[in-house]
Amino acid sequence: MRIKVINPNTTAGMTAKIGEAARAIAAPGTEIVAVNPAFGPVSIESHYDEAVSVLGVLEEVRKGEEEGCDGYVIACFGDPGLLAAREIATGPVIGIAEAAMHAASFISTGFSVVTTLNRSCIIAEHLVERYGMHHACRKVRGTDIPVLDLEETGNAALRTILDECRRARDEDRCGAIVLGCAGMADLVATVQREIGMPVIDGVAAAVVQVEGLVRLGLGTSKHGDLAWPLPKPYTGSLSHYAVKAR
Amino acid sequence: MRIKVINPNTTAGMTAKIGEAARAIAAPGTEIVAVNPAFGPVSIESHYDEAVSVLGVLEEVRKGEEEGCDGYVIACFGDPGLLAAREIATGPVIGIAEAAMHAASFISTGFSVVTTLNRSCIIAEHLVERYGMHHACRKVRGTDIPVLDLEETGNAALRTILDECRRARDEDRCGAIVLGCAGMADLVATVQREIGMPVIDGVAAAVVQVEGLVRLGLGTSKHGDLAWPLPKPYTGSLSHYAVKAR
Amino acid sequence: MRIKVINPNTTAGMTAKIGEAARAIAAPGTEIVAVNPAFGPVSIESHYDEAVSVLGVLEEVRKGEEEGCDGYVIACFGDPGLLAAREIATGPVIGIAEAAMHAASFISTGFSVVTTLNRSCIIAEHLVERYGMHHACRKVRGTDIPVLDLEETGNAALRTILDECRRARDEDRCGAIVLGCAGMADLVATVQREIGMPVIDGVAAAVVQVEGLVRLGLGTSKHGDLAWPLPKPYTGSLSHYAVKAR
Amino acid sequence: MRIKVINPNTTAGMTAKIGEAARAIAAPGTEIVAVNPAFGPVSIESHYDEAVSVLGVLEEVRKGEEEGCDGYVIACFGDPGLLAAREIATGPVIGIAEAAMHAASFISTGFSVVTTLNRSCIIAEHLVERYGMHHACRKVRGTDIPVLDLEETGNAALRTILDECRRARDEDRCGAIVLGCAGMADLVATVQREIGMPVIDGVAAAVVQVEGLVRLGLGTSKHGDLAWPLPKPYTGSLSHYAVKAR
Amino acid sequence: MRIKVINPNTTAGMTAKIGEAARAIAAPGTEIVAVNPAFGPVSIESHYDEAVSVLGVLEEVRKGEEEGCDGYVIACFGDPGLLAAREIATGPVIGIAEAAMHAASFISTGFSVVTTLNRSCIIAEHLVERYGMHHACRKVRGTDIPVLDLEETGNAALRTILDECRRARDEDRCGAIVLGCAGMADLVATVQREIGMPVIDGVAAAVVQVEGLVRLGLGTSKHGDLAWPLPKPYTGSLSHYAVKAR
Amino acid sequence: MRIKVINPNTTAGMTAKIGEAARAIAAPGTEIVAVNPAFGPVSIESHYDEAVSVLGVLEEVRKGEEEGCDGYVIACFGDPGLLAAREIATGPVIGIAEAAMHAASFISTGFSVVTTLNRSCIIAEHLVERYGMHHACRKVRGTDIPVLDLEETGNAALRTILDECRRARDEDRCGAIVLGCAGMADLVATVQREIGMPVIDGVAAAVVQVEGLVRLGLGTSKHGDLAWPLPKPYTGSLSHYAVKAR
Repeated sequence: MRIKVINPNTTAGMTAKIGEAARAIAAPGTEIVAVNPAFGPVSIESHYDEAVSVLGVLEEVRKGEEEGCDGYVIACFGDPGLLAAREIATGPVIGIAEAAMHAASFISTGFSVVTTLNRSCIIAEHLVERYGMHHACRKVRGTDIPVLDLEETGNAALRTILDECRRARDEDRCGAIVLGCAGMADLVATVQREIGMPVIDGVAAAVVQVEGLVRLGLGTSKHGDLAWPLPKPYTGSLSHYAVKAR
Repeated sequence: MRIKVINPNTTAGMTAKIGEAARAIAAPGTEIVAVNPAFGPVSIESHYDEAVSVLGVLEEVRKGEEEGCDGYVIACFGDPGLLAAREIATGPVIGIAEAAMHAASFISTGFSVVTTLNRSCIIAEHLVERYGMHHACRKVRGTDIPVLDLEETGNAALRTILDECRRARDEDRCGAIVLGCAGMADLVATVQREIGMPVIDGVAAAVVQVEGLVRLGLGTSKHGDLAWPLPKPYTGSLSHYAVKAR
Repeated sequence: MRIKVINPNTTAGMTAKIGEAARAIAAPGTEIVAVNPAFGPVSIESHYDEAVSVLGVLEEVRKGEEEGCDGYVIACFGDPGLLAAREIATGPVIGIAEAAMHAASFISTGFSVVTTLNRSCIIAEHLVERYGMHHACRKVRGTDIPVLDLEETGNAALRTILDECRRARDEDRCGAIVLGCAGMADLVATVQREIGMPVIDGVAAAVVQVEGLVRLGLGTSKHGDLAWPLPKPYTGSLSHYAVKAR
Repeated sequence: MRIKVINPNTTAGMTAKIGEAARAIAAPGTEIVAVNPAFGPVSIESHYDEAVSVLGVLEEVRKGEEEGCDGYVIACFGDPGLLAAREIATGPVIGIAEAAMHAASFISTGFSVVTTLNRSCIIAEHLVERYGMHHACRKVRGTDIPVLDLEETGNAALRTILDECRRARDEDRCGAIVLGCAGMADLVATVQREIGMPVIDGVAAAVVQVEGLVRLGLGTSKHGDLAWPLPKPYTGSLSHYAVKAR
Repeated sequence: MRIKVINPNTTAGMTAKIGEAARAIAAPGTEIVAVNPAFGPVSIESHYDEAVSVLGVLEEVRKGEEEGCDGYVIACFGDPGLLAAREIATGPVIGIAEAAMHAASFISTGFSVVTTLNRSCIIAEHLVERYGMHHACRKVRGTDIPVLDLEETGNAALRTILDECRRARDEDRCGAIVLGCAGMADLVATVQREIGMPVIDGVAAAVVQVEGLVRLGLGTSKHGDLAWPLPKPYTGSLSHYAVKAR
Repeated sequence: MRIKVINPNTTAGMTAKIGEAARAIAAPGTEIVAVNPAFGPVSIESHYDEAVSVLGVLEEVRKGEEEGCDGYVIACFGDPGLLAAREIATGPVIGIAEAAMHAASFISTGFSVVTTLNRSCIIAEHLVERYGMHHACRKVRGTDIPVLDLEETGNAALRTILDECRRARDEDRCGAIVLGCAGMADLVATVQREIGMPVIDGVAAAVVQVEGLVRLGLGTSKHGDLAWPLPKPYTGSLSHYAVKAR
């Protein structure tokens, strides 16, 4: 099975880290193709960054279909372009926020999300609503750590994250913590050990989810709302994004 | 006051029609700048079309800021890129679905939406949830009219829309009908006359809403979730989308 | 265009202030008729005050129809009698809570309300639910300022309001503040300047909303739930409230 | 124990019928005082009728407090003035819609409401939301029977109601039916026998609910949101509605 | 009228206390049969305790039907086995959480629950959702008092409860407090006096509710979702739980 | 990895079928232990059947912990005893309704459930609410097939199911169908082929979900709401259900 893990930003170091996290959990026989678009924001920290990043995500899914990918992970906690990506994919497409929140709801009655910038909390909160997770999400907590600080050596970011996770544990009556950024994928073991309760990284959770759906023979439904986009011309510099008739 | 009305698809005829509808309602002293991106889908009928169209919407807002636009209308019923556009705009940004639904909720206790393809209903339904309009939206009704058929002469599309509006009136216990496509902007008077109840076109509703907010001195809040995106590099062919430090 | 702005309480000084705020925002050509009933509570600070005030609101709308008013604003943050008023009005009727909350949701992803008595918060909270604004309203904050204290000279009330607005800004992660009383209409500029984020007065917001709907040719729907009340006898001292057959 | 059952409309025949239904269920030792205001609409079939009727309801509660009433029933399915009435009552105040819906939720997992005019359905639907009954209310069904037709001899109205109740039973997967008008209080036994499933009249349900709360020593909470209205002047013809300092 | 009050745990002292509270409120002519199962947990403080206790609840209802009981109270704040019990009961079955929350919503616009272990809060919170009480429940507050500590002499538990009730009163803007454990039935008068606002014990509230429904002639609906279970074999040690054909 | 798949009813033939479905999807190296309790109902078709079956589910989990099971599947579409089972399990516990609904939400924007008896629909509907799936579940459809009819040879039940699935596909605008009974596990391939859209069996979906969580190192959180039950005496015939101190 070949799963494409798409880092929607263009920071190669983060893509490498995400790929490592994906490979570490992948089942024997699963090939992880970790990529990032050649164009777009170096990090995603606003609705704007996210919106622009979608184009790269879709390009990678489009190429993935030609490359015979069986499923896709969108490795940014805003799950950018999720429904659009599903329309052009044969197999399943899973966002890491989606995967992490669902996993958390299976092992606890309530979880908190610890993420990066405070201004990004709204993105996670909107996903909580969209996914019907308000019954389980106790709080979304920002730390005001810029995403790319997670790529730096040194432990300042880790310390801040640990502090916020401890507050979540002690104040939110939660049973699990979801790390709200793909760039935290390498921290999950450390945080879990320090906090003493389940901590979930969406990259690993999403890889496992995609593998499971593929094994179940379940791809994105092509009946109804997520059917292939209708073939039609696209104009100008985006003309190659046009979907061909099938 | 200068309001930019952005048709997110690239069909110039539709842009002209939208511009006309906007100018017909605009207050004296309001300049309507009706545009469409130079690139992207000729019509928006899926999550995929919509996701790709966002880039053009953002480009037009970016240019609009340089051109001194006071506010923006996103003239596609999926309100593509709404929150991202707000982040890079000084003035208000209003989507036509948003404007139409809110207007409908002011003059009735329940409205129905009549839109184009059945597969697009889900986009409107998700917006109903996002905008907290489930208390007022009785039903979203598809007609399976392709968007560009609305640009053709002849009355086939109109007849289909009228039939569906009559069904909405007679079966949904609604007090108003929202036309769920910018391409229907020229039909509102005819439909209202035939149906005998208020019918709302989002383009006109959004222009009026933007004018009102500008007069109130209210632009998009730059405190918190919709603050200017952080300046950062964008890579490759999208590098010019990078937001500069302010 | 003639818009009647109805202050549901009987304090003439407050009506004058509300009228001023309305006129300050009204478009050229809009005539603002600011009134209050001749009977009823001098201020509205409970469900009881509000319920009794409704009669005066309806009387003013009834007279307004005879006077050729094109639309109405109900200038009390509980929006008293809103649906009843709509039934007897040809044009649109907008409550100031409704107008302010909707405006806030257009320029931010979350707003807080700062109002007068703590016991009145429940009224605003019920409206938040009724209008589907729970996704956007972060908190309703009372200050325990009696409504009529807003009519007094001196800055004690203003200072209290500013303090609460600052708390909202710093603790609620909100992007806009709604002032939750028509009697605060004259404070909006000061508060906005001090707080440094958008502050919304419902009186101005409602005037603009009514103007917009009238320009759109949208009156209250007379199809279905908000149709004219059936003609029937009213008894005793309220017999003149009976609606005539049309 | 003395319970005042207030018919908010001014049709004495209907008050008599309501009083009878109340007395038939009242416990030994409970005195039922069935009244209607001297002023207001002869029937309540719109938001407008309802809004005007509130004044009479409040007057009756005010007098009831002087008369030593222990609790109140508001005998109109829109529960007009409920929260305002609670503020000026020492004992409990229960609306018949509220009582009927809660009773239905105790004996079934889903109920349907059968009411009078189709245009009144919205009033019941708003109460369903307000009371958190959306999980249990399967459907609100109008019959377009004018309220006062229920006061006439002959069985036309009964037949229409029975037909609608049968449809509710057969199509809504409901386990109980709520009769949505105080004027149907005398039909409950007949309908229940014909339909073969529990049928609930709100008048009886509310009397029992008030008796229970009084026996529990529970009156309307005077702490917080429903505390006594602040004493203040009321102006003009409504000056006697002013609440005195306590 | 004979009402069976079932304490789902096996602590006889607690059953006696519950029986006393029930008898103290019961109407003349109501016989209270207070029982606990012969088997199961001595206290219920987790989903597990609760799940195991259901068997005893059902056994007592089954026997109650043979004994001619007219209705049932399930006297544990998790309302264990409520819908299952309803299926095998002719009369009404009411849980104490259900009864208390509904009573609280009749006399206030918002209540808080003060319960025992923090880990039990989730059970009450799930019931709040199930019963549609999120609009009225301000907060569920744990005290970490083990259930059986409520059976001990001395005032340590009472003091802790009073402290938490005071916090609820002062911080939650609530108008009533619900005591979230059947074992607190004897504390209600003391707490109410100390706190100065309505305090509700579910045992008394449920007895009154059952009496009322029985007087209304309303038993559990046997049409639809709560009809008698289909007769079928039960195997092994639980074979006597099989429902016979009727 | 050892996963225990618990059929909560006592029909061995159904357990065998469920075991087969589980083994067919299990990864290499996963041992499936398919069991049913020695006691309890032969099928689960009501809240009562379900409530009684919980004891057997818990017994099997308790034994599973001693047997070294890494995770559990509760193979009945009501997910009986889910939270209680989680409290006494180290590893993850997944219900088949939960697993199927979540899988459906990953590959479609809306799904319908096709289940057995109409009276069981309410159980699925309550789970839809509990799991936050109302945004995705379009309809729950009963077929009035008794559960054990699914064990019989002949195609009557299959034909009925296919008919209902076709109606779901054609009327509900859904993109996937969830089979609402563990006894339908062997029909999924046939139904999917006939219906032409994704069809989901919860048994397979749950096995894959448990495997994934175990691989992620995620067991049921023992922090907070789902911590081990407190050790305490259990009385009488259920005394062996007491949880020991750890």
